[in-house]
Amino acid sequence: MDSVLRQSKAVCPFMKKATASSLRAMTTAARPAASPCGGAISKLQVLAHRCPVMGKAMAVQSARTGGRTSAAPASFVHKAKLHTGRPREAQAVEGVFTGQKAGLPPHPPVKPTIATPANPSPAAYTVSGNFGTKFNYEKFYENELEKKHKDKSYRYFNNINRLAKDFPRAHMATKEEKVAVWCANDYLGMGRNKRVLEAMHTTLDEYGAGAGGTRNISGHNKHAVELENSLAKLHATDAALVFSSCYVANDATLATLGSKLPDCVILSDSLNHASMIQGIRHSGAKKIIFKHNDVEDLEKKLAALPLHVPKIIAFESVYSMCGSIGPIEKFCDLAEKYGAITFNDEVHAVGMYGPHGAGVAEHLDWEAHQRGETKGTIADRIDIYSGTLGKAYGCVGGYIAGSAKLVDTIRSLAPGFIFTTTLPPAVMAGARAAIEYQMSYDGDRRLQQLHTRAVKEALADRDIPVIPNPSHIIPILVGNAELAKKASDKLLNDHQIYVQSINYPTVPVGQERLRITPTPGHTKQFRDHLVAALDSIWTELGIKRTSDWAAEGGFIGVGEAEAEPVAPLWTDEQLGIADAVAELRAQASDKKKGVINQLLESVAIEQEREALNAAQEVADAAKAAAASA
Amino acid sequence: MDSVLRQSKAVCPFMKKATASSLRAMTTAARPAASPCGGAISKLQVLAHRCPVMGKAMAVQSARTGGRTSAAPASFVHKAKLHTGRPREAQAVEGVFTGQKAGLPPHPPVKPTIATPANPSPAAYTVSGNFGTKFNYEKFYENELEKKHKDKSYRYFNNINRLAKDFPRAHMATKEEKVAVWCANDYLGMGRNKRVLEAMHTTLDEYGAGAGGTRNISGHNKHAVELENSLAKLHATDAALVFSSCYVANDATLATLGSKLPDCVILSDSLNHASMIQGIRHSGAKKIIFKHNDVEDLEKKLAALPLHVPKIIAFESVYSMCGSIGPIEKFCDLAEKYGAITFNDEVHAVGMYGPHGAGVAEHLDWEAHQRGETKGTIADRIDIYSGTLGKAYGCVGGYIAGSAKLVDTIRSLAPGFIFTTTLPPAVMAGARAAIEYQMSYDGDRRLQQLHTRAVKEALADRDIPVIPNPSHIIPILVGNAELAKKASDKLLNDHQIYVQSINYPTVPVGQERLRITPTPGHTKQFRDHLVAALDSIWTELGIKRTSDWAAEGGFIGVGEAEAEPVAPLWTDEQLGIADAVAELRAQASDKKKGVINQLLESVAIEQEREALNAAQEVADAAKAAAASA
Repeated sequence: MDSVLRQSKAVCPFMKKATASSLRAMTTAARPAASPCGGAISKLQVLAHRCPVMGKAMAVQSARTGGRTSAAPASFVHKAKLHTGRPREAQAVEGVFTGQKAGLPPHPPVKPTIATPANPSPAAYTVSGNFGTKFNYEKFYENELEKKHKDKSYRYFNNINRLAKDFPRAHMATKEEKVAVWCANDYLGMGRNKRVLEAMHTTLDEYGAGAGGTRNISGHNKHAVELENSLAKLHATDAALVFSSCYVANDATLATLGSKLPDCVILSDSLNHASMIQGIRHSGAKKIIFKHNDVEDLEKKLAALPLHVPKIIAFESVYSMCGSIGPIEKFCDLAEKYGAITFNDEVHAVGMYGPHGAGVAEHLDWEAHQRGETKGTIADRIDIYSGTLGKAYGCVGGYIAGSAKLVDTIRSLAPGFIFTTTLPPAVMAGARAAIEYQMSYDGDRRLQQLHTRAVKEALADRDIPVIPNPSHIIPILVGNAELAKKASDKLLNDHQIYVQSINYPTVPVGQERLRITPTPGHTKQFRDHLVAALDSIWTELGIKRTSDWAAEGGFIGVGEAEAEPVAPLWTDEQLGIADAVAELRAQASDKKKGVINQLLESVAIEQEREALNAAQEVADAAKAAAASA
Repeated sequence: MDSVLRQSKAVCPFMKKATASSLRAMTTAARPAASPCGGAISKLQVLAHRCPVMGKAMAVQSARTGGRTSAAPASFVHKAKLHTGRPREAQAVEGVFTGQKAGLPPHPPVKPTIATPANPSPAAYTVSGNFGTKFNYEKFYENELEKKHKDKSYRYFNNINRLAKDFPRAHMATKEEKVAVWCANDYLGMGRNKRVLEAMHTTLDEYGAGAGGTRNISGHNKHAVELENSLAKLHATDAALVFSSCYVANDATLATLGSKLPDCVILSDSLNHASMIQGIRHSGAKKIIFKHNDVEDLEKKLAALPLHVPKIIAFESVYSMCGSIGPIEKFCDLAEKYGAITFNDEVHAVGMYGPHGAGVAEHLDWEAHQRGETKGTIADRIDIYSGTLGKAYGCVGGYIAGSAKLVDTIRSLAPGFIFTTTLPPAVMAGARAAIEYQMSYDGDRRLQQLHTRAVKEALADRDIPVIPNPSHIIPILVGNAELAKKASDKLLNDHQIYVQSINYPTVPVGQERLRITPTPGHTKQFRDHLVAALDSIWTELGIKRTSDWAAEGGFIGVGEAEAEPVAPLWTDEQLGIADAVAELRAQASDKKKGVINQLLESVAIEQEREALNAAQEVADAAKAAAASA
């Protein structure tokens, strides 16, 4: 151990400065057990994973041991946690890209000048030629790629051509190889919606392919104006601003605010998306990370800051890799109390929640928004929204929405907005059609929720481990990078089902998963096919089932005996199925088959798209049958 | 003076450290006269303009004095240049957004803790409420916007709806208000090209509106594969990679390389685009700025660095605001000599130069590329290309092209590529159609060049000052922010011509201009209308003509007696008009009317689109007439 410490101190400026007692304190600073997305781990580990040298080393070691190493003895763990690959304490390694540091002052990415295997000095890559000894760039690239292969984070892209007329199917490289897509973010199938496509065709004919310039120089047009008006209406804000993507929207907005607001502090949820992390880093503002969705931790950190200093609380409403939902109302309370503003990323929620599809914030005050009374609602208390046009709205692009002055400030100052070509008129027209359609019709998102519930029920029935959450995301726990990749490959090759495996660095090592996203188009035939395929693959590859995780005491919500059941955000009442569900539960029906599956089965499959409207009829029929029995 | 110095030293950490002699040296470090885009000014001014406090103050002062203050006495200039607004030494203030520092180590944006009018402390914005004294965010936004209004950099967007079937016309807010667009970057009108639109319509019907995911998760498809194949073919590289925009491509690529290459140094042209500046800043790498297109200055800076250290020379082929063209071959020579790689941004050149439209690098070895012999050409020596699909290719999106390993490295490591939704299939299909079309047909770009020459000739004829350059950009010098805006407004309101004024911070204070971009669609009727309108506005507003600038000794190439004429990059031979031009010159024709205008007039206006093919016939006819005379 001593030699390890000595070695660490020799190469690492942080270890050099830290005292033994401070290091020990850091290992116990947080509960040493992982949250569904790795939110709560020791502070030392957070730091270690964010170190460009240690983070890589730990990932490589974890990958080598297959993420299955049992925990080291306690005495070893506390002293040498930096050098273990203990999978249950792994962490989303956002920091590998970003040099993110919890609670430490911001600085540029660490560029170690000391030669280590992970980050050699330029001398390690030199090559001699006509003029002397130079840097060998190709060798450097090769080495970077080799590292990705070694830690299993090298990505192989699948060629998936989603078919508008055969949704949710796609063809692969050739048109003959058809697959069912179960992992796209076109959550509502709006990418093939008739109104969206019509708007795009018409606009294409009238206004051409591209915008032809930046917003300032010939690229501002009625499509931008109308789209931003629709977005402001959606979120009931003064104004909105459209960007190339929501990655750019988050990056540009946080970077601009964080750098311009004097002495700004940004409080960031530990699981925030890469785009927010980059924006915060690019701002140069002081960054404080709070534990995932942890109101208490956030309050502690807010309370420690001077009241008059500007602060941004940055979070997401739905976290896409685990499906957790942020405690938005409480964040708003804290913002008010401590003089902060809220930055709410609704990327995975717009179109999907709320009576008009404005997202989770709207969903939380359902009735008020349905009545059109937005004043004083949680949604009304949010200072800045960010959202995307590329997921539930089926197109591409991102945006922010907020007060007129905020939006004008970002419009006027953010280079990522100013110096880029406007989205094509047809894309903006299509996105606007999607937003307006989803504002006036909620059938797609209700059916999507029913399908989500049906898949979750069916998987529970087969003992296949779903990480519990209240949203439309279905994360199936695999817990091993190689197995997750194998399962994904088998689904594709043996069953013509496409579900991308989600590995490090998108999720922590040891928490690898298959992330499934049902749509309104994933009807019974698709569900049955998927569930049977997963069941057979789980057996074939010997992947742990829920009961296996339970036998080990549970993991990130899976098989945890004491865990409370997670209620979906969409209630039975909001889905309009309360009566039908009550009736089905009361009947002596097949208890093993979930209620939602029964409900969906009780309508003809070809009518499943009409299931929502039919739900009340089913309930009525059941009532009538019970009455006449 | 002493009080100014004392005051500066009190608030500025840089001034505090600097000695009197080092400051004096810095004022004479470079020729105290501006280049067409502000490239060569004193080092102290470069630093001052990049200071978030001084930069703003200087801009405000310049704006107040209308950019027309005469130079202060020499003794004052040398000591107090920081506090003058001398317009002829203004500089593109990229640094206002980016904290860019010439030759200094990189660091996060400067956030002064001392209260100054430009950047007050949080206390300046506080407001008292229920819980105590908090930061007033709305007041802060208001103040930021007020600053933009004051320094005349607040942007008003014009609502311009470019009509595919009435190119190059657009309508404004209502369909009745038609205008001729003279400043779009859809340089070749590909946004309304039939093949492009057909490809988009077909793809939209078959594959829907959006890609539905990131490249890794269900958003990789044949459209991405084919587009990247076409781009690699275009630049004769192993591979290419498509991004949401070229802003993102530049930012992501430079940030990734600069942060990953050990001890990397990036040498950046002083006029590089905001996206490159951001990428370099985000990389945290050491940045060295060399004078615009100055091979000697670059070599001096390269020679001072260790040979074995990785270096990137980052530049553009065509600079869009002044039309200058980079000395690409010499940059390649230096890269080879000093062990650097070249990053060549061809955003304003792809589609526009070279036998296949691959850009300036291709153009420089015309014959070799026409024969398909790319090996050993200048283009072949470029390590990294970046380019756009949103200008000459008429769509949206950006890309890089280079070696297989380089591209795979960026693909694997750049968050701005990884964590964002793929461009819509229809956009990628449209862009690919545009690239392939321009690879096989050069008529559009040749006609674009003829129209550029014709406009430049006609403006010269009217004594209207065009900043000389060898490219397709026509920057008309106004030299005053308010006048430039007024001229633009008058063009729009009185003449139904849309040309956006280009003011600070896009160009230096004192170099405000109208930037005109002809297309193949800007035929004689459009040209005559534009030139007459400009002529009348120049008189009406009393804007300086070329002869006025000449009387003052000339400015940034305008009216400079000793300046050598700038030859266009496209030669008469490459345009296929050498014989025709020679004949016209030999004839006793109207000397006042330019040769290109005569040539274009000599073909029927309705046939102008066929002018290129007709040019040879004209030459033959002239020859025949001469022979029979």
